[in-house]
Amino acid sequence: MVRRSGRRPGNQDTKQSILESARKVFAERGFDKASIRAIAGEAQVDPALVHHYFGTKEKLFLASMNSPIDPAEVIPKAMAGPPEEAGERLVRLVLGVWDSPAGAAAVALFRSALSNEWTARLMREFVVTQVLRRAVAELGIDEAQAATRAALVATQIAGLAVVRYVLRVEPVASAPTEQLVAAIGPNVQRYLTGDLPGVFETGDGH
Amino acid sequence: MVRRSGRRPGNQDTKQSILESARKVFAERGFDKASIRAIAGEAQVDPALVHHYFGTKEKLFLASMNSPIDPAEVIPKAMAGPPEEAGERLVRLVLGVWDSPAGAAAVALFRSALSNEWTARLMREFVVTQVLRRAVAELGIDEAQAATRAALVATQIAGLAVVRYVLRVEPVASAPTEQLVAAIGPNVQRYLTGDLPGVFETGDGH
Repeated sequence: MVRRSGRRPGNQDTKQSILESARKVFAERGFDKASIRAIAGEAQVDPALVHHYFGTKEKLFLASMNSPIDPAEVIPKAMAGPPEEAGERLVRLVLGVWDSPAGAAAVALFRSALSNEWTARLMREFVVTQVLRRAVAELGIDEAQAATRAALVATQIAGLAVVRYVLRVEPVASAPTEQLVAAIGPNVQRYLTGDLPGVFETGDGH
Repeated sequence: MVRRSGRRPGNQDTKQSILESARKVFAERGFDKASIRAIAGEAQVDPALVHHYFGTKEKLFLASMNSPIDPAEVIPKAMAGPPEEAGERLVRLVLGVWDSPAGAAAVALFRSALSNEWTARLMREFVVTQVLRRAVAELGIDEAQAATRAALVATQIAGLAVVRYVLRVEPVASAPTEQLVAAIGPNVQRYLTGDLPGVFETGDGH
């Protein structure tokens, strides 16, 4: 295998180099067009080594984002259940992650994404390809409407993060989870499955 | 009058010094508790000079935030009209400001507010005291519910800014104003005047 020469020896150096290359390539090309091969090339290592350390492209992306959760695991669980309560479950899920000890890292990442063009691209790729795409797929939302509904959901979820964790506007900053679920869940639900006249030609999404 | 000694002579230096002091005092004490006297003290100038240059505390706050608009002027206009369409009008207003040439500065400020604790406090004070407080006052919303409804509105409006201007998630990033008004307006309306069971004990806000 090809190793990049670095100041520090050992695997840690190679892993860090791969993660940095992954962030660069994911930000530049987007998740879908980024390949393990391109990331390996950027890091000057063999693609097999990237697979060995990080597994799939999804897993490498999660590692490069320091994601405290794996959306492939938690999104299907959160979306399972009555479709008409999916909005509430989604709000409950994100509050559960962000309010957890691991959530501080997610909030810090979100904050950094908002101040830096490059991190913003990574965050957008993460939110769109790992979170929203999975959520709308689980709900079986009409493909022609999926991207719009997902982006509208993103406006509400991102804003909840901004107001609760970054700007800390009361009473949202200190509100109990279930109060926010009751307040915000139905609005997310409307974006997911509601009629959106003026947005889509047919009102019922089918 | 007392002048702070600075490297550059003239009024511009004093004005900048007052604006810096204003940002510091507004961030530390909040808008309501900040006084022209405290800001003048921080800048080592006479309070009369602050009044002379900037007028009221509100005007000084707007100047210190480089606000492209005066919420005291635009909010009452935007809120006038059928109460059941206030949500749509508010979305139309903010998109109108942000999409305007002056809006780039507002978006840059918002971005900086999200990455810096100190700017975040200023932004929160601005949003709460200058924008949301005026909006809910114009609508005559029950005082006991006003802060909650305003903060919920903030979650949607802040998230719209994040997704459209910072993360630039499509199709929201490029959507025409009226499509976003149709999509997001009713959700803002629910926060402003809708029943919010699980949030307030009585459902109708009265």
